[in-house]
Amino acid sequence: MSRDYRGIEIQKVGVKDVHLPLRIEQKEGGYQTVLGNISLTASLPRHYKGTHMSRFMEILMEWSQRGLSVRHLHGVLEEAKEKLHAKRSEMTVLFKYFVPKLAPVSKNQSLLDYDCEFTASLNGHTYNLILGVVLPVNSLCPCSKEISAYGAHNQRGLIKVRVRFKPKEYLWIEDLIALVEQQGSCQIYPLLKREDEKYVTEHAYDNPKFVEDILRDTILALRGEPKVTWFEVEVENFESIHNHSAYAYHNEELSWSLPE
Amino acid sequence: MSRDYRGIEIQKVGVKDVHLPLRIEQKEGGYQTVLGNISLTASLPRHYKGTHMSRFMEILMEWSQRGLSVRHLHGVLEEAKEKLHAKRSEMTVLFKYFVPKLAPVSKNQSLLDYDCEFTASLNGHTYNLILGVVLPVNSLCPCSKEISAYGAHNQRGLIKVRVRFKPKEYLWIEDLIALVEQQGSCQIYPLLKREDEKYVTEHAYDNPKFVEDILRDTILALRGEPKVTWFEVEVENFESIHNHSAYAYHNEELSWSLPE
Amino acid sequence: MSRDYRGIEIQKVGVKDVHLPLRIEQKEGGYQTVLGNISLTASLPRHYKGTHMSRFMEILMEWSQRGLSVRHLHGVLEEAKEKLHAKRSEMTVLFKYFVPKLAPVSKNQSLLDYDCEFTASLNGHTYNLILGVVLPVNSLCPCSKEISAYGAHNQRGLIKVRVRFKPKEYLWIEDLIALVEQQGSCQIYPLLKREDEKYVTEHAYDNPKFVEDILRDTILALRGEPKVTWFEVEVENFESIHNHSAYAYHNEELSWSLPE
Amino acid sequence: MSRDYRGIEIQKVGVKDVHLPLRIEQKEGGYQTVLGNISLTASLPRHYKGTHMSRFMEILMEWSQRGLSVRHLHGVLEEAKEKLHAKRSEMTVLFKYFVPKLAPVSKNQSLLDYDCEFTASLNGHTYNLILGVVLPVNSLCPCSKEISAYGAHNQRGLIKVRVRFKPKEYLWIEDLIALVEQQGSCQIYPLLKREDEKYVTEHAYDNPKFVEDILRDTILALRGEPKVTWFEVEVENFESIHNHSAYAYHNEELSWSLPE
Repeated sequence: MSRDYRGIEIQKVGVKDVHLPLRIEQKEGGYQTVLGNISLTASLPRHYKGTHMSRFMEILMEWSQRGLSVRHLHGVLEEAKEKLHAKRSEMTVLFKYFVPKLAPVSKNQSLLDYDCEFTASLNGHTYNLILGVVLPVNSLCPCSKEISAYGAHNQRGLIKVRVRFKPKEYLWIEDLIALVEQQGSCQIYPLLKREDEKYVTEHAYDNPKFVEDILRDTILALRGEPKVTWFEVEVENFESIHNHSAYAYHNEELSWSLPE
Repeated sequence: MSRDYRGIEIQKVGVKDVHLPLRIEQKEGGYQTVLGNISLTASLPRHYKGTHMSRFMEILMEWSQRGLSVRHLHGVLEEAKEKLHAKRSEMTVLFKYFVPKLAPVSKNQSLLDYDCEFTASLNGHTYNLILGVVLPVNSLCPCSKEISAYGAHNQRGLIKVRVRFKPKEYLWIEDLIALVEQQGSCQIYPLLKREDEKYVTEHAYDNPKFVEDILRDTILALRGEPKVTWFEVEVENFESIHNHSAYAYHNEELSWSLPE
Repeated sequence: MSRDYRGIEIQKVGVKDVHLPLRIEQKEGGYQTVLGNISLTASLPRHYKGTHMSRFMEILMEWSQRGLSVRHLHGVLEEAKEKLHAKRSEMTVLFKYFVPKLAPVSKNQSLLDYDCEFTASLNGHTYNLILGVVLPVNSLCPCSKEISAYGAHNQRGLIKVRVRFKPKEYLWIEDLIALVEQQGSCQIYPLLKREDEKYVTEHAYDNPKFVEDILRDTILALRGEPKVTWFEVEVENFESIHNHSAYAYHNEELSWSLPE
Repeated sequence: MSRDYRGIEIQKVGVKDVHLPLRIEQKEGGYQTVLGNISLTASLPRHYKGTHMSRFMEILMEWSQRGLSVRHLHGVLEEAKEKLHAKRSEMTVLFKYFVPKLAPVSKNQSLLDYDCEFTASLNGHTYNLILGVVLPVNSLCPCSKEISAYGAHNQRGLIKVRVRFKPKEYLWIEDLIALVEQQGSCQIYPLLKREDEKYVTEHAYDNPKFVEDILRDTILALRGEPKVTWFEVEVENFESIHNHSAYAYHNEELSWSLPE
């Protein structure tokens, strides 16, 4: 490895947009094979001219073969830090994850896809994990309902949640979804029969929510989850009466202390 | 230019994803400067190993400086055919185009953006022009309205229309929009005040349409336009109760004869 | 189902952008679980106002649970045709598929991802299957090599191939990849050690190819495959000296007759 | 405006993905009309249930008609803060901007497109402006050059730079480009004749740079610009021998003091 004389320690260098199959542990047991889009980086000391790019891929290929799950992210980052002589390493994994949904009346089961994210970092011995989930929901406009003789415009919206955990704590993707999926005007389902569609339509009409309401209710739900130390929420409604989105954003650090 | 011995005449070779500013003529007069995403290709005779890639860019740069408009596409294709010793040349231009919309009640004016496309080809002396426009609309589900005690799910939908013209004929983008924008449950507007939102909500509720209805009504509208010889329609509704789209497609060749 | 009086038989109506896990049969045996992006449509007779959207999802959910593979596409389309009283049904499945690659010198194994497509249609009893694969390759410019004292610009390119088969015939994704992956200047690998990188660099420099060369060599390879009756090839090079792509396209119907 | 009782002040609420034409002032004089993708948000006091979404659009439509430029962003944010009774407002504008490039030898002129960003925020009376530019460059791998008997793999890379300014200071897009465009192995041009292509090929071969080198050299260039108080650099190389990217990231706060 040749020396560098510019005197700059690089914060992150590595590989991005690596696609690999991964196994994600399911709350109900077993694993789900997903398509991962991965970036893996490490810091680079100032006296090194370049990192070892092929080592990042060797690490990812090995872990992928063994079945990479969220439990292994810490191990991947340890290995990256060590093999690359780095102080810090970081990894982001993006994937679609499927969770069974029961239609509200017929109870027909179908699979709904959620965009998920793990972002893990290791700074010295400090490990940090962020879980992100994007939840599609229905949002129905309270103003439209109030001022109109009948009807109310509604649309698909996305609640994007990212949470950070206390050390040793973790929330199943399924649990984070359960916490947030009720914060829209109504949940979304891949498969709905007539009786379900009636329920969904009326339920949304009975629960009109602005983008601000969805954001605030999601904030309250996340504040109530004791495993979480920080969160970030974005809500985006693809307005059905406009060609742009209504949008709201909030993040919050929650105060907590290590158990004695 | 070196010879090729594989005996294959290539149908299209050229440049793709070239971004350039373009001027588009407006129906109301004057020009609108847009951001064009352009591809320009020509056929390649079997005995040529390669085309002259830089000539495509020279042609585009020159026309762009003069203010490239739909009237000039024929000239661009003639020049491409000639400079590249080709039998055929083809050009596709994708751009966002703005049209003023008056809110239905307040009459407030705002600019709505439409994704547009020109695809022009010159085969020997036969010139062919396709105009494409994507119209965002509101669609409200008739089934949801019928079975529910109140409300009805609705969502943003896209009507994607592509039309081919009789020789010497042309339809303004504004005219194609006017023909199609009423085929959804309600039009979409960038800026709506309370009285407008009431109108839009009620109007959509009074005009429930399946994706099939929007498609069929658009087909009827296009069949009635005498300048058009072929069209293609796609309708996609971003269902507010699902995480997938409802979709319909149709194309049609219209019978016509050259005027004697 | 209510009647329609507009007299228009719709060519395609159904669902689009449905995400589901699928199992794809591997040439070497076993199945690979992939993330599918699916559209499923059927024609709609003129007297029906609307199709049964939920049936499309029921069909997809059932087949997905059983492990949907390319062998089952015919069955899915039969079921869609029958349950929706349609003359024609069509399905497109897009997915990333992984194939192990051995580095050229070190023989290290890694997984390369290919964007793949199945498009199947059933028109009456006529079944039609198209397989599409997008292959990333390295392309090195012959002109740049020839005119320069040293070096030659090269870049990532994509060879997009779509093939249609004779009745009862099929080509493994792996076999189509093997046919096409050598048509660039050099193959691409996720994991390369130093000795591999030397090989790849020199091999590309020894095999300079224009976008036209890659297209023509791919055409020759596909013409030589007796199971194929039609193909379409696109080559796109993300030029490293420009901010646009060099592009070439060709399609061909191959003459063939049913065996007596 | 109805009251809210959840006690949460929302950090940002407003509109997103609004498309409008904008005028950007050019260094050489005059304005360039661009296609803007805009988000405009404001904070929402805890006692308000919802913001006035239509006011965001009214503000944007008015400024767009007058010709919105970077000089006006402060005024837009003042107006948004006032009309929405907010403590903070924020705006992000994304657009493609064209700058003429002279080919290195032939001096032929062509227009190169750069993805640009303005992010401006107003917190009380504190105004903050970030300018972002994405520069496409050629990057040639030093390792590949060193270990190979001839040739070297190279590819298109992107240098993404975001800078924050001292109060009252500003850098022309053109000036930021000039500072960064030389940090790759070679610049990129839309139009190159043979003599230019020879120059570009050889120049890149004479200037091999890792993703780390491009990052560090860009850092040094930005540290030397006295108007800048903070910057962020990302470099992404679309490796021509892999199907993933090499990636590096760094950000830095520069120490500075207000002039006395």
